Amino acid sequence: MTGNKPLVIGIAGGTGSGKTTFANAVIRQVGAEHVVWLAHDLYYRDLNHIPLHERRIRNFDHPASLDTHLLVANLRDLRAGKPTDIPRYDFREHRRLPQTKRIDPRPVILLEGILILAEQELLELLDLRIFIDTASDVRVLRRLRRDIEERGRTMESVMEQYLKTVRPMHLQYVVPNKHHADIIVPRGGFNETAVYMLTNHIRSFLQSEQSR
Amino acid sequence: MTGNKPLVIGIAGGTGSGKTTFANAVIRQVGAEHVVWLAHDLYYRDLNHIPLHERRIRNFDHPASLDTHLLVANLRDLRAGKPTDIPRYDFREHRRLPQTKRIDPRPVILLEGILILAEQELLELLDLRIFIDTASDVRVLRRLRRDIEERGRTMESVMEQYLKTVRPMHLQYVVPNKHHADIIVPRGGFNETAVYMLTNHIRSFLQSEQSR
Repeated sequence: MTGNKPLVIGIAGGTGSGKTTFANAVIRQVGAEHVVWLAHDLYYRDLNHIPLHERRIRNFDHPASLDTHLLVANLRDLRAGKPTDIPRYDFREHRRLPQTKRIDPRPVILLEGILILAEQELLELLDLRIFIDTASDVRVLRRLRRDIEERGRTMESVMEQYLKTVRPMHLQYVVPNKHHADIIVPRGGFNETAVYMLTNHIRSFLQSEQSR
Repeated sequence: MTGNKPLVIGIAGGTGSGKTTFANAVIRQVGAEHVVWLAHDLYYRDLNHIPLHERRIRNFDHPASLDTHLLVANLRDLRAGKPTDIPRYDFREHRRLPQTKRIDPRPVILLEGILILAEQELLELLDLRIFIDTASDVRVLRRLRRDIEERGRTMESVMEQYLKTVRPMHLQYVVPNKHHADIIVPRGGFNETAVYMLTNHIRSFLQSEQSR
């Protein structure tokens, strides 16, 4: 870090839209040493005080389920060139882990999450707001596969959660905040041209940082 | 021109979406000396053989109203590093002017038009496909103002044409081809971040051209 403000890029989009794939593709091109990657997901509030079977049926797609104040505090540290301690979350058991993770500042911050454009405090911290726009049928199939394969869920429970909370929250909080985006990326992580454009944008930023 | 292939960028979007404003903002940033600007609009077929009052009620928003083959031929010349002769069109009288205009090749080609993503031949020539996405009520108001102020039309005639042909053609040919876009730009020419991103992308291309 040169002491200049980092470039903070937000990547929003519905569940299964390809936010992580897109972010990874960009980080691979730019070089991971320049980038801090953060997910709003890591900031789920701790549900340790609630029995496990009840945690599973909670609404995880409402803005109130996330500790956005902590995220904002972490982002402010990083923007000020200071290291910060981010939370860790266990998606299988729906609880925040006791240990935090120390993150050092880097010139580029990539923040991803379905609800990052729904929070005024976050919007104000984002220099570039990207929305990954992928068709809802494609998204739900990805979600289904991910939750079954990576999070040990049954097809029935994923479907029930999707229809009961994920989809209504998407329509209420994700779609109406799409208009805050500066750029909308169709087809997500498999959109090579969009990855290339964002990579060029970040490289220009890094070059201008070096020459200051 | 260095003899390398130019970067061909297509800017699509409905009537009044801000395609020209966006293109102008980018050209101003990049430097006009690097860019050829072309509009699909210039390629309207000549209606000189039809009485003027009938020309005015023609469907100007159907792909068949445009001479896309000529545009493709012009683009192929420019891509091959050769000068080319593009048509001129009189929007008040709906006729192609007898004189053509000689255009020299430049490293970047910006092509705009509502239907450029609806033509397979054009799609194949575009290195970067941008769709300017602006709300339909904002678009129709801009269209109304432009046609009255710049093209000497009455409000009634603009409204009639809009509802009778512009809008149905938009739904049939513009919207369904949006998925071909690599990047979707909300708010058009007033989206400074998107202008800046595309400018950086073009500058990276120009730098890589110079270093070849």
